[in-house]
Amino acid sequence: MGEFDLIKQFFVRGAAANSAVALGIGDDCAVLNPAAGAQWLVSSDMLVEGRHFLSTVAPERLGHKALAVNLSDLAACGATPRVFTLALALPRADATWLAGFAKGLFALADAHGIALVGGDTTQGPLNICITVMGEAPAGQALLRSGARVGDDIYVSGTLGDARLALELFRGTLNLGGSDFETVRQAMECPQPRVALGQALRGVASSAIDVSDGLIGDLGHILQASGVGASLEADALPRSAILAAQTLAVQRECGLAGGDDYELVFTAAPTAQAAVLQAAQASATPVTRIGRIEAQPGLRLLDRQGQALAASFSSFDHFKS
Amino acid sequence: MGEFDLIKQFFVRGAAANSAVALGIGDDCAVLNPAAGAQWLVSSDMLVEGRHFLSTVAPERLGHKALAVNLSDLAACGATPRVFTLALALPRADATWLAGFAKGLFALADAHGIALVGGDTTQGPLNICITVMGEAPAGQALLRSGARVGDDIYVSGTLGDARLALELFRGTLNLGGSDFETVRQAMECPQPRVALGQALRGVASSAIDVSDGLIGDLGHILQASGVGASLEADALPRSAILAAQTLAVQRECGLAGGDDYELVFTAAPTAQAAVLQAAQASATPVTRIGRIEAQPGLRLLDRQGQALAASFSSFDHFKS
Repeated sequence: MGEFDLIKQFFVRGAAANSAVALGIGDDCAVLNPAAGAQWLVSSDMLVEGRHFLSTVAPERLGHKALAVNLSDLAACGATPRVFTLALALPRADATWLAGFAKGLFALADAHGIALVGGDTTQGPLNICITVMGEAPAGQALLRSGARVGDDIYVSGTLGDARLALELFRGTLNLGGSDFETVRQAMECPQPRVALGQALRGVASSAIDVSDGLIGDLGHILQASGVGASLEADALPRSAILAAQTLAVQRECGLAGGDDYELVFTAAPTAQAAVLQAAQASATPVTRIGRIEAQPGLRLLDRQGQALAASFSSFDHFKS
Repeated sequence: MGEFDLIKQFFVRGAAANSAVALGIGDDCAVLNPAAGAQWLVSSDMLVEGRHFLSTVAPERLGHKALAVNLSDLAACGATPRVFTLALALPRADATWLAGFAKGLFALADAHGIALVGGDTTQGPLNICITVMGEAPAGQALLRSGARVGDDIYVSGTLGDARLALELFRGTLNLGGSDFETVRQAMECPQPRVALGQALRGVASSAIDVSDGLIGDLGHILQASGVGASLEADALPRSAILAAQTLAVQRECGLAGGDDYELVFTAAPTAQAAVLQAAQASATPVTRIGRIEAQPGLRLLDRQGQALAASFSSFDHFKS
């Protein structure tokens, strides 16, 4: 199968999916119509086999995940998804694999009204690079830099299941059949919190998505905002499956697991009702997990309010 | 070196480079300010070692080329470059390599006023994915679909040197020292025709950049515009170095070489003076090479106006 046939068969789907697209796939560039008064938000993520996904993943789930991790960046900024490009290096043009990949990709794209407008395909070691673009009313994007002393810290959903799944694949832990499938789904099919992000515009003071682990990603908020925080380590929301593990595993997975794609965000105590309303409006559970403080650094407290001495580090692609 | 240190050391350069950038590197997304009345043009290209560049290329030239091939897509649409993202998979974080790559990348970025606003770095087989964004006044982007019967066909610069260099590396041809360096530079340091593209807005009826070979890329214009063309095969502009080769080599390199990153475009005969003015204003040589006709297909003519029977095919990443 040739490159142009491949694009046509699996990735060209007729009319533009939304009003931002003046011209989609098929020219040197896509042509986009920014909405009046909007800012554009842009993010790129690259996924490599063995680093971001295992070779055992189903192509449909991989298509989903490749877009999901990018949508999660738009969610963290409170943006409305509009368009994306897809660059794909493939060892070979495998029609079965491509059909599955495209199916998972477009199911998620359609769920969020985001249109594929261009990209590239080439022969090479499997590599998936997606760039997403979204819109937000000017000045309303959620940033990492807005956390203020006294703000509450919240997180959406639950943390740690994706890391738990990774440990199961690594063989360091064991888990029965249906539980394994549940946490595997958390790892392979993360649901980006797009609706929550949009609902938090004008409510949250800062936000980031949890991709490298809560501690590391919350650390980016603290650094960008010039503040510190205390976190109730054992009050983190976790699944019943993770809660059945030892406290050490719960802490490692929840605090430093990575691949969660939940939102961690801050809001003034006076905004608490608005936060709960945003959670309800977006049908997304949120849990208060700590507080922003003036003292720099991140303090982890156990149930008794005692400092945890444990050291956790977030995932870094160039550290082992 | 960790991932965040690597980004900071080589790719973060302080203040935003142009008025389109409200917020650059450092948050989940970059935040962009579209200019009133403008459309955005977006393109992604992925470069893989052994496919798009040889392992022998200097990192500085590779940084240049990775951005150049993307800028060439903006040029083909007549867009003004604004911002780009860079996703980079690297076998290891090699500071010498990264410093060279960043130097070549930013030298070209600065020359075109385009700002790096985000991206991704990860460990993996060498892969470079760049997404560029540019602007054009609404409705003025150059497209592949505007060629009309009777239009002249033009190409910028010269064609074939990059392919000639590839053949030298492959060992199918030989060439002396300084000539080798000259064509090697054409292959490794293409100069995107950004100024010409912008000058052709309102002048050219269609345009595309020559990345996969003239015949294939002109073919995209013909298909998108629903027309055919005749091309004077031996009237193609070529360097003195290529002109010294056999006619067969000249034709193969010029017609089907690829990696030229020149613009091929069409314009009504009444626009001839405006085309020459655009060429002059952008200090870019252009040559008339043929004419758009109603009869579908592409006819290659020799100097005597006789049809060339030769078959050439443009480069396709999934055909051998």
